[in-house]
Amino acid sequence: MQQPVVSCSMPSEEIKSLSLPVGWKCYRSPEGQKYYVNISTKETTWERPSRSTTRPKTSGSHQHSVNGHQLLGASGHVLEHLDVSLGKNSLSNQSPGSTSPARRQNKEKEIKETKITINCVTFPVPASALEQQLLKPSEWSYCDYFWADKKDPQGATVSGFEVLLQKQLKGKQMQKEMAEFIRERIKIEEEYAKNLSKLSMFPMAAQEEGTLGEAWAQLKKSLADEAEVHLKFSSKLQSEVEKPLLTFRGDNFKKDMKKYDHHIADLRKQQVSRYAAVEKARKALADRQKDLEVKTQQLEIKLSNKTEEDIKKARRKSTQAGDDLMRCVDLYNQAQSKWFEEMVTTSLELERLEVERVETIQQLLRQYTTLRHETDMFNQSTLEPVDQLLQSVDPAKDRELWVKEHKTGDLRPVDMDI
Amino acid sequence: MQQPVVSCSMPSEEIKSLSLPVGWKCYRSPEGQKYYVNISTKETTWERPSRSTTRPKTSGSHQHSVNGHQLLGASGHVLEHLDVSLGKNSLSNQSPGSTSPARRQNKEKEIKETKITINCVTFPVPASALEQQLLKPSEWSYCDYFWADKKDPQGATVSGFEVLLQKQLKGKQMQKEMAEFIRERIKIEEEYAKNLSKLSMFPMAAQEEGTLGEAWAQLKKSLADEAEVHLKFSSKLQSEVEKPLLTFRGDNFKKDMKKYDHHIADLRKQQVSRYAAVEKARKALADRQKDLEVKTQQLEIKLSNKTEEDIKKARRKSTQAGDDLMRCVDLYNQAQSKWFEEMVTTSLELERLEVERVETIQQLLRQYTTLRHETDMFNQSTLEPVDQLLQSVDPAKDRELWVKEHKTGDLRPVDMDI
Repeated sequence: MQQPVVSCSMPSEEIKSLSLPVGWKCYRSPEGQKYYVNISTKETTWERPSRSTTRPKTSGSHQHSVNGHQLLGASGHVLEHLDVSLGKNSLSNQSPGSTSPARRQNKEKEIKETKITINCVTFPVPASALEQQLLKPSEWSYCDYFWADKKDPQGATVSGFEVLLQKQLKGKQMQKEMAEFIRERIKIEEEYAKNLSKLSMFPMAAQEEGTLGEAWAQLKKSLADEAEVHLKFSSKLQSEVEKPLLTFRGDNFKKDMKKYDHHIADLRKQQVSRYAAVEKARKALADRQKDLEVKTQQLEIKLSNKTEEDIKKARRKSTQAGDDLMRCVDLYNQAQSKWFEEMVTTSLELERLEVERVETIQQLLRQYTTLRHETDMFNQSTLEPVDQLLQSVDPAKDRELWVKEHKTGDLRPVDMDI
Repeated sequence: MQQPVVSCSMPSEEIKSLSLPVGWKCYRSPEGQKYYVNISTKETTWERPSRSTTRPKTSGSHQHSVNGHQLLGASGHVLEHLDVSLGKNSLSNQSPGSTSPARRQNKEKEIKETKITINCVTFPVPASALEQQLLKPSEWSYCDYFWADKKDPQGATVSGFEVLLQKQLKGKQMQKEMAEFIRERIKIEEEYAKNLSKLSMFPMAAQEEGTLGEAWAQLKKSLADEAEVHLKFSSKLQSEVEKPLLTFRGDNFKKDMKKYDHHIADLRKQQVSRYAAVEKARKALADRQKDLEVKTQQLEIKLSNKTEEDIKKARRKSTQAGDDLMRCVDLYNQAQSKWFEEMVTTSLELERLEVERVETIQQLLRQYTTLRHETDMFNQSTLEPVDQLLQSVDPAKDRELWVKEHKTGDLRPVDMDI
């Protein structure tokens, strides 16, 4: 009856290969042979339906319809609609027609052997006849894929929930790094604008005259306008991209993550201690049963001078130990159920937070490209007056202006008379 | 007969106010009163026609039709077609009907008084009856407005030709300064590109995953693309704007300007020395005439014992001095005519060079704005892939990718049995 307590996760490939396509359930015939039923089409087959082709596909929308229920973002709601009762796998419809006590006992024994407790959590063993449908079969939802523990590259055990939490914290870090990147870009723009603005005030060729001089002056001025555009770009980058990236998830976010972490950890601790109680009760029962067995044998072969009273007492104690074990298992199952519910609720919340984060960052990066587009557009407009003035550059007009200002006298020399 | 030699120019406003509209000529009636004739319409009037409304207007084209002749760019050609014979003002049609010798002499005396020699150049005095038509009446041509000298702000005398030359040298300087300005812009672009390129390789948020990670990576890459665009801009600025600005007029240009300067200066020197010869001859004649006069008077009042032979000798010397003066004046007029032709030829050449310079610089500055336009255009194209990837960012897809990679196990816990 004792289950091996191991902390490594099951090979995930094996787990994956065991899950059935949506709608299919696996049953065992009275003869103990597996067969498969599609609960919607009522199709039955001895052949195991192939899974790979019907693995959940994600869609662009963030709401999915599962078995006619609309899954909403709030995890509480989702839980109400999940089509598998939490923490329990319905055993109804199991081997219908196989009702004899002997068979039932065999069956139950078989079922017991299909469970494995890893790190104080009880799972069906992969080889089990029982197929688990996904909680959200049409989505790659966090709530379906993080039940086991994982060894990290350093060899330490990491719970599935920890992996989810790390993802969130990493997301926060990414945000911060993006903000840093934008900050660097802002600096580059400011430097560029400063240099352009400085250059536009250099006195070079300031003495160029006429229409060409005007075009040149405008060309120089256009650098100041460009500088202005880039300054505006950098200031908008700051207020509309960098700052939102920095403030999108404040310090509360990490606190919230810690709260989730502590809550789950507390529930796990309770589960672990209740698992220990189960183990203890199981051992006590085994001791009592052994004691009873020994006493019964002694009575039968008359080796002992114990009275039947002793045996009755031992039987009573054994029954009591059995009741204890039952109570401990109940408490353990309650604790596991609580943890399970919290895991589903929280992982759905983390899922929602991740969607929010991705969409927010997408929005902010879009804002970045919008601002870049605007910058080039406004840059273009700084050139328009230059182009216009260059268009109207006219050497004859320039000569007229220059001659009017600089002429020395238009009376031509004449011949001298004697 | 001695003309005052002054080096200051005539007040240019006065000169300007004296020139007549195109087609009008000023004549003096036999009674000495001015009247005005329009040589094309044959209209006559005592009223001076207003000049201001018909001052030459410049047009966009660089070829002008004057009196039915096409003025070509080559100064040699232009000279052939100028409608006023060079260095001489036709005196034909002057006071027709006034033919008596006495009157003619009066007239000639009057004409003589209408000339003034300034810095060894003989001009009609502004109060003169003689109106000069512009050499190129429809244009503000250099060849019409730089005959007199000018005092520069330091009080030194500057010839009109010097003013024209300085304009050319200043033009060369402007070119050089524009090239410097473009060089500074190139440096700014290179610096900007370097910074963008460096930033694009920063590892910030490199661990962002999924479609958002792709969009982010593309956004970072777009900075390298932008850098590339700005580098191309700066390299094209260098080859297509800066270098042409620097090389447009090589060292030969200054040499050519010096050649013109020396040529004109040589001609002016000759003119000056011939003017000195005229002055000397004029003085010699005056001396001879005085000598002859004294001798003649002495003979008349019998104060002298000189013979008529002496008087004849003095008269011969006086006649010889008169011939000398005539020859000197001829040589002077020839020198002035040569200088005049060279002035017109060269100033038209400088005019052509200035048109060429303005048009070339206009072209190069247009190239600058074209390159700037292209830069913004290409910058835009660096954003297209970012926009596309941001468009296809999908939180559900990202979750799928992440879950596939990081999932720890999808077998859900089940209740423990006793």
